[in-house]
Amino acid sequence: MTDPEPAEFALIARHFRPLAASTPGALALSDDAALLDPPAGRTLVLAADAMVAGVHFLPDDPPETIGRKLLRVNLSDLAAMGATPLGYLMTTALSRETGDAWLGAFSRGLAEDQALYGCGLLGGDTVSTTGPVTLSLTIIGSVAEGGALRRNGAREGDALWVSGTIGDGALGLLALTGRLAALSDGARATLGARYRLPQPRLSLGAELGGIATACMDVSDGLVQDVGHLARAAGLGAEIEAADVPLSEAAKEAVAADPSLLARCLSGGDDYELVFAAPEEKADAVIAAAVRARVAVRRIGRFVAGQGVHVTGTDGAPMPFSRGGWSHVA
Amino acid sequence: MTDPEPAEFALIARHFRPLAASTPGALALSDDAALLDPPAGRTLVLAADAMVAGVHFLPDDPPETIGRKLLRVNLSDLAAMGATPLGYLMTTALSRETGDAWLGAFSRGLAEDQALYGCGLLGGDTVSTTGPVTLSLTIIGSVAEGGALRRNGAREGDALWVSGTIGDGALGLLALTGRLAALSDGARATLGARYRLPQPRLSLGAELGGIATACMDVSDGLVQDVGHLARAAGLGAEIEAADVPLSEAAKEAVAADPSLLARCLSGGDDYELVFAAPEEKADAVIAAAVRARVAVRRIGRFVAGQGVHVTGTDGAPMPFSRGGWSHVA
Repeated sequence: MTDPEPAEFALIARHFRPLAASTPGALALSDDAALLDPPAGRTLVLAADAMVAGVHFLPDDPPETIGRKLLRVNLSDLAAMGATPLGYLMTTALSRETGDAWLGAFSRGLAEDQALYGCGLLGGDTVSTTGPVTLSLTIIGSVAEGGALRRNGAREGDALWVSGTIGDGALGLLALTGRLAALSDGARATLGARYRLPQPRLSLGAELGGIATACMDVSDGLVQDVGHLARAAGLGAEIEAADVPLSEAAKEAVAADPSLLARCLSGGDDYELVFAAPEEKADAVIAAAVRARVAVRRIGRFVAGQGVHVTGTDGAPMPFSRGGWSHVA
Repeated sequence: MTDPEPAEFALIARHFRPLAASTPGALALSDDAALLDPPAGRTLVLAADAMVAGVHFLPDDPPETIGRKLLRVNLSDLAAMGATPLGYLMTTALSRETGDAWLGAFSRGLAEDQALYGCGLLGGDTVSTTGPVTLSLTIIGSVAEGGALRRNGAREGDALWVSGTIGDGALGLLALTGRLAALSDGARATLGARYRLPQPRLSLGAELGGIATACMDVSDGLVQDVGHLARAAGLGAEIEAADVPLSEAAKEAVAADPSLLARCLSGGDDYELVFAAPEEKADAVIAAAVRARVAVRRIGRFVAGQGVHVTGTDGAPMPFSRGGWSHVA
């Protein structure tokens, strides 16, 4: 007679099965696959993101925040399409050092965000690795048929908008790794929290249908991602650095070291929405943002030509040798 | 003005975008997420599996087969539910040693299997890792509403069936790593190919609706996986080792070393279907297998009690301290 349950089944039962309790189609993670009856009249929206310890999160980040960040960067992709989450699948490659306490905290964080964003675990896989902890998550959402926001619809003359504040994630990483020595404790905590827990702008994305002509989330750096929107439309873009919204914590960091403004504009890990809208829809954009309870700011516009041209706070062009974060060096 | 395209965008454009050409909802991998209009009246079936170099495939396996194996182990999960594939998302964590030639071969293999199984790339993410290459794939399929095969429906007295041949994958791994020195070259090639390229039994799974009472794919070892079916039904199971179908290559290996029979029954990496069906449906099972062009064999039955009891070819009980492969040591 066989040993009934090898180690990973106990691990899955203890930590991951409770995350599937709210998604009946997950079949308690006990089948080969999950079932999902798609909502009628809706288009499914699907995205997948991976995170590697030491690359996308710090190995000593609180495990509670690591799962939440993984889920949130995926939710941010749904937000960028104007979609609403339905559920997710997750694979985890764990190292021998990843103990039960780590997994418990990791899963508690996910449970918290599942409740916050209304989506549950549908399935996945748990394997071991000799390398760093590597996590992959596939999010499934839905949007009204024909209602998805796309990257490629910006038109010449459209205004360029961004949600929230830019640069906090990149400065947060610097703060957490001891490279912003002059920063106050309060600013350090604020920026670190923004690096660890991005805020997917689902409500704003859902409100921008029929208003925004193009949209994406800022994950690789504002300048680079605006470049994606511009290139997809065969246009250029202009950004006024003075108009880019900075948090009070980021302003403190930039005041102490003005070179950090460029870092804010290119550092990535913002997970804000950047989008295009006709100038005459400015009031509609602001009304949508009010309904979504998210701040938005007009930071520039789309123009004929190519590339992203950034005007610095001194009125002179700001050079960017690389607009953002490259995943493959 | 910014550098227009960092390295991973060129890489994605060259290797992965062609894989998305057959899935219009993939939006040429240029948006934050993919769109998929689910087929009307069908339930979606979703599964995710991860593979780590050195754990789930050999670092020197031909890259053509690595992507195919990743896709096929996921397709095997669909087969186990009786589902038909729609598309997939994939995340790849690549090491610095993973060059352009490797990725080209990896993608060519995937393209071949996409054509074979009728499903295309929908989206994903490409990141770098300091550890072994780590791949994760989420498959999306569909099945008629209410038609999914489940693991938990076996009834006392049901016959236990398996498709294809068992043990080739496990012996293939031994052969590829030089641990079956006495094997003929032909048998070595056959077993190695079965380890590297499992055959997802999609056609059989699709034919078993209304016939099988429970089904899953054999990924962790026959004895362990039969244990899952039995436990899910609150039953035990009996397997006659003499009835378990072995390939000619596996028979050659077992003849040279009879202890390898236990390895065949517990080694995993089979990706065959194991399923329960009422004894009176034996003819229907065989007819389904003929339509699917896959061999099936009755290897035992479900009984009151618990655990999996294996009778060896000598008529004596075969002990298994652990019925299969554990992902987390």
